[in-house]
Amino acid sequence: MFAPVYLDHNATTPVSPRVLEAMLPYFGVQYGNASSRHEYGRAARRALDEARQRVAAAVGAHPTEVIFTSGGSEANNLFIKGAAAYLPAGTVAISAIEHPCVREPAKALRRLGWRMREIAVDGQCRIRSADFQAALDERPALISIMFANNETGAIQPIDALAAQAARTGAWFHTDAVQALGKLPLDFRALNAAGVHALTLSAHKIGGPKGAGALILDKRVELAPLIDGGGHERGYRSGTENVPAIVGFGIACEEAVAGLDAAKLHLTALRSQLERGLAELGATIFAMAAERLPNTVYFAFSGVDGETLVAKLDRAGYAVASGAACSSANPEPSHVLLAMGVEPKLARGAVRVSLGRQNTADDVAGFLRTLGETVFQLQHLTTVHPHVAV
Amino acid sequence: MFAPVYLDHNATTPVSPRVLEAMLPYFGVQYGNASSRHEYGRAARRALDEARQRVAAAVGAHPTEVIFTSGGSEANNLFIKGAAAYLPAGTVAISAIEHPCVREPAKALRRLGWRMREIAVDGQCRIRSADFQAALDERPALISIMFANNETGAIQPIDALAAQAARTGAWFHTDAVQALGKLPLDFRALNAAGVHALTLSAHKIGGPKGAGALILDKRVELAPLIDGGGHERGYRSGTENVPAIVGFGIACEEAVAGLDAAKLHLTALRSQLERGLAELGATIFAMAAERLPNTVYFAFSGVDGETLVAKLDRAGYAVASGAACSSANPEPSHVLLAMGVEPKLARGAVRVSLGRQNTADDVAGFLRTLGETVFQLQHLTTVHPHVAV
Repeated sequence: MFAPVYLDHNATTPVSPRVLEAMLPYFGVQYGNASSRHEYGRAARRALDEARQRVAAAVGAHPTEVIFTSGGSEANNLFIKGAAAYLPAGTVAISAIEHPCVREPAKALRRLGWRMREIAVDGQCRIRSADFQAALDERPALISIMFANNETGAIQPIDALAAQAARTGAWFHTDAVQALGKLPLDFRALNAAGVHALTLSAHKIGGPKGAGALILDKRVELAPLIDGGGHERGYRSGTENVPAIVGFGIACEEAVAGLDAAKLHLTALRSQLERGLAELGATIFAMAAERLPNTVYFAFSGVDGETLVAKLDRAGYAVASGAACSSANPEPSHVLLAMGVEPKLARGAVRVSLGRQNTADDVAGFLRTLGETVFQLQHLTTVHPHVAV
Repeated sequence: MFAPVYLDHNATTPVSPRVLEAMLPYFGVQYGNASSRHEYGRAARRALDEARQRVAAAVGAHPTEVIFTSGGSEANNLFIKGAAAYLPAGTVAISAIEHPCVREPAKALRRLGWRMREIAVDGQCRIRSADFQAALDERPALISIMFANNETGAIQPIDALAAQAARTGAWFHTDAVQALGKLPLDFRALNAAGVHALTLSAHKIGGPKGAGALILDKRVELAPLIDGGGHERGYRSGTENVPAIVGFGIACEEAVAGLDAAKLHLTALRSQLERGLAELGATIFAMAAERLPNTVYFAFSGVDGETLVAKLDRAGYAVASGAACSSANPEPSHVLLAMGVEPKLARGAVRVSLGRQNTADDVAGFLRTLGETVFQLQHLTTVHPHVAV
């Protein structure tokens, strides 16, 4: 297989060797159903219990606050639809830059008589305080604001926002999928500030696809999306995905253990990348915001993002244009539009999201290739204005 | 690890070596997000496409009729809740012996104004024709009847039932999780007879936990449980679990390829087991019904099933008491109660579910150990009636 340098870690990450090693016995040897009473089942149950402790420890939660799901999308849907099911129809307030797996379930509540209120962001992808307060004045019953944005990497002051929202009595949720492994997360402290639920995903942090969690304050009443055998204290039925959950536990441990070193390493690579981009004349989005140390989102005026990403891929660098999950959608990023970026420039957006294994050589090589590719594209466009590139 | 002989294949199965081998590259090497446009993403997309073809081929469906989910519970919930969301509140008719992951979502529809109608079975775990017709006369909008029961193994004549129901205009669903790999399944023929949806699960057929599918007639309108990036044609959002889905595809191929040989092998083992059980004086449930070739469900009068299972486990044989998924529940099996079995005898229920790897020696050894264990328990109970065992 042709293996480009992978610079798309906000889309997904390789499973770490230690994670895979921990998962392997649970496929063909300790393969029991964790609900079975015999030794195979009990071994699976012990593995789940340990994984639950690892995940809880990584985010400062109690193991009984962890609800395992099939991933981040399910956890976000579980919170939004599940909490709404126990409330009279009201307002759900979400930021204008949420991932579709928060935005779409919030929209879906309209069918049940709910109203969706979007909270505006500024040109740097930060929640606008005045609009947040205006949203609170409308007494939402549910609030969901992502911890860090998957496209720009912009970080919201979730504890302060939750504290401000606490007086409304709303349940406050944050999608922390992109924050885990890149920022410290402390559910105990967040919960004290007024955060009631937190979404995590394994495959963004070196864990496997197919596992995620909703960390939930037990005061929140939640109807399950998946009813059945009563797994996960009744919040999520279905045979537990033991190998994936075991891998999730180990990935959480690794993510937290290496956090400080990763932050230094990634921040240095990001600076190198941003200096190079500035020299090439790129616009970097949300540059003034507090951002994830691994994420740089940029565009070149007059250069189509999709085309650039395709050319970079053939030249050996795997990066994203817009968010991976909605890349079937040819519209410019809703995040950039919410920030007031011109649609023309937004169509040029390219995201580099670094991982712990990336090196200064990866970044230097990427910048070189990027410079050449952008030059070619700009040159081609000038010489052959009617040729689609 | 102490490794008892595994005789609980209706709860879950070991991942087959070929399945695991096929999955492995997708963890650490070809780890792309299938929505990404670069080479990693395209490789993941190709793998998903191939797996979809394999799953579809195994059950005589078209690849575009396959909706991948995290498992059977999710697929059953997706059909029941998803179809109900597009219909005015009405009646959902299910058999009295459905798995909790059909029964509970059907019950949950009550919150939305629906009525749940249970269809009675006879003493051999077969749908009662008269009660099925009575249920149809009540014009249900949704019908769900399992293909083969997880506890007794009893097989329902799904094509005939669907044909009978066709005049009502109801959407007809069947949970075929226990049928896959044990019986031939042909969605094209079933669909022609009036079946609109079919649930499958990977981990019951030598595939991994964390993958399943709903095979869906495209005329059925379905609201997703998990909204978001629009994966699986909008029916199921969330980053696709590529390794698990790849494994599911291979497992389907293996399940179908070995079907005839497995049927002969399992039927021979089942006969051996049933002869031995008869000699020991066991009651075998649903003995007169057409049943899965791998499943035997039985009880000994005066012997508690949980106790027997625990003792057999320590003696080296892993079997189930009642259904694995609801074994946290101390009530006797709802399946046996629906069949009119006395609660006292039902509490003695033990299920042996054989796999293709089991041998005549496994069965002979199990019968020997069972005979000794039952003798001990009956003896102990007689001598020390007040001692809990």
